[in-house]
Amino acid sequence: MKIDFSRAVSLLKDNDNFIILTHTNPDGDTLGAGFALLSALRKLGKRAKLLNNDIIPEKYRFLVSDGDDFENGFVVSIDVADTVLLGKEIQGKYADRIDLAIDHHSTNRLFAKESYVEGESASVCEVVYLIIKALGAEIDSFIATCLYTGCSTDTGCFRYTNVTPRTHRIAAELIEHGARHGDVNVRMFETQTRGFLKLQSLCIASLEMHFSGKVCVITVTQKMLHDCGCGDEDCDAIVALSRRIEGVQAGITFKEKKDGSYKVSVRTHEELDAAAFCSIFGGGGHERAAGCQFECPLEEAKRQVLAEMEKFLEKKA
Amino acid sequence: MKIDFSRAVSLLKDNDNFIILTHTNPDGDTLGAGFALLSALRKLGKRAKLLNNDIIPEKYRFLVSDGDDFENGFVVSIDVADTVLLGKEIQGKYADRIDLAIDHHSTNRLFAKESYVEGESASVCEVVYLIIKALGAEIDSFIATCLYTGCSTDTGCFRYTNVTPRTHRIAAELIEHGARHGDVNVRMFETQTRGFLKLQSLCIASLEMHFSGKVCVITVTQKMLHDCGCGDEDCDAIVALSRRIEGVQAGITFKEKKDGSYKVSVRTHEELDAAAFCSIFGGGGHERAAGCQFECPLEEAKRQVLAEMEKFLEKKA
Repeated sequence: MKIDFSRAVSLLKDNDNFIILTHTNPDGDTLGAGFALLSALRKLGKRAKLLNNDIIPEKYRFLVSDGDDFENGFVVSIDVADTVLLGKEIQGKYADRIDLAIDHHSTNRLFAKESYVEGESASVCEVVYLIIKALGAEIDSFIATCLYTGCSTDTGCFRYTNVTPRTHRIAAELIEHGARHGDVNVRMFETQTRGFLKLQSLCIASLEMHFSGKVCVITVTQKMLHDCGCGDEDCDAIVALSRRIEGVQAGITFKEKKDGSYKVSVRTHEELDAAAFCSIFGGGGHERAAGCQFECPLEEAKRQVLAEMEKFLEKKA
Repeated sequence: MKIDFSRAVSLLKDNDNFIILTHTNPDGDTLGAGFALLSALRKLGKRAKLLNNDIIPEKYRFLVSDGDDFENGFVVSIDVADTVLLGKEIQGKYADRIDLAIDHHSTNRLFAKESYVEGESASVCEVVYLIIKALGAEIDSFIATCLYTGCSTDTGCFRYTNVTPRTHRIAAELIEHGARHGDVNVRMFETQTRGFLKLQSLCIASLEMHFSGKVCVITVTQKMLHDCGCGDEDCDAIVALSRRIEGVQAGITFKEKKDGSYKVSVRTHEELDAAAFCSIFGGGGHERAAGCQFECPLEEAKRQVLAEMEKFLEKKA
């Protein structure tokens, strides 16, 4: 059942022993909002703990704060559009007993008993900020930093079109509450390893342009990752790079996996639907960011992808 | 003479035939603020024109709007800390007859008859926004877009520590006034030419690390720019890159100018004052971003800069 803002606030006010669930492959928004809510509820004298299916990456450890030790309670999911995104273990244990979902994905599957979804909000941290304010919990520097992290990371540091005037106003208030915005942004956006820079150089050197510069193809092999001391987490920025070149409508990254198969990531600008393209090969995703898999050798995968892309571009023209 | 906000507004209200001067190697802040002020003054029925010593780079052409045709008038410099930054031709003609300087560099040399300097402001566009509001001019979508551009570019898209709550609140208001924030950010931060990517690869390949990785030195020669089909405007992103590497406290970029001299740009993290460092060599700027000039050969300039940097780091340790 969909509920409104004040009902969501009441549920948090009237319950105790909160089990806060966040999504797998956790990011700054789910963790920032989750740990901010955990801290705020504990400041109000309640008990709370946060669960994540995965190990929290080093990059996000600064958001972690201690929870309480208890077994059963009121279950809240944060930034989770579908129970499948809870990850296997958490999904198995909690999928059918989530009391409240707080989310900003308009595609939220309404799996919780009650769901508060703000589809227009740039981040779930914006929503949780307003909830914490309404709960009357003190917003200290730690909570402000957690919430700022989600506001910043889910908007590419205020860069994307999902930013609204409210996003900026909330960022202003969070800085006033002591959010360490400079630190967060250095950590999230500024810091690159020399290894990553080397990988980026190799990718640029081997980049191919097709169809009069409308399509950029980047290949990342296991050898390249190994030579640069990079891991899978470094590939996201390479994938983003594929779309950045002037005139490119589709950026396609072929990433060799450890088993020798290829993950293909497609990033597009407004002209092309990446999810529709990837569905040709059994993949999927969002309009601007989607992916698919290939078990065949690289050259064959490229041949297939480029042949279909040519048709895809012709259809749009 | 330093003046306050209301005096600056009065000067603009009480005069006419405005000649707006912007700095050489123009960026989003000087041009955004300059063209926003030009448009606002013209909306108030006044005549105004904007001068720049250089050809305005393609990247910033969307900020350009028509001015009026007249000879003499009230001269206003925007975002110009020193008359030398006006560029030779404009400096020769206007350096000793600037009526009003509007700036956000605390190092402003107070060369104008009257100077309104907000050293704490992240961009001069923030200052000009407040001035335009006080003048009572209508802020349309074009003016809002101009001002948003400076707010965004001078803060690395709200990423740097110069961002204050005011910066975010002004961004919120500018979006409400119709600033095309998504477009601006794609143009300023997302789009890269192949030439730029090639330049970046060359810079990464030739990058030097000093003092246990605390200092990163990048060199950009005219030949590198020429080989990659890049211009001066591409160097800003290279300069930003110098500070991004994990563990780097100061990024120093030596850029060869057309006349063979070197412009040195220094970018620092919280530990080091870039303006104080550059002042050793007669330069200036902000705490995290400053610059200076060298007429000597590259190796000699590097030797001097690194020798002083070593002392500078020792003082901080």
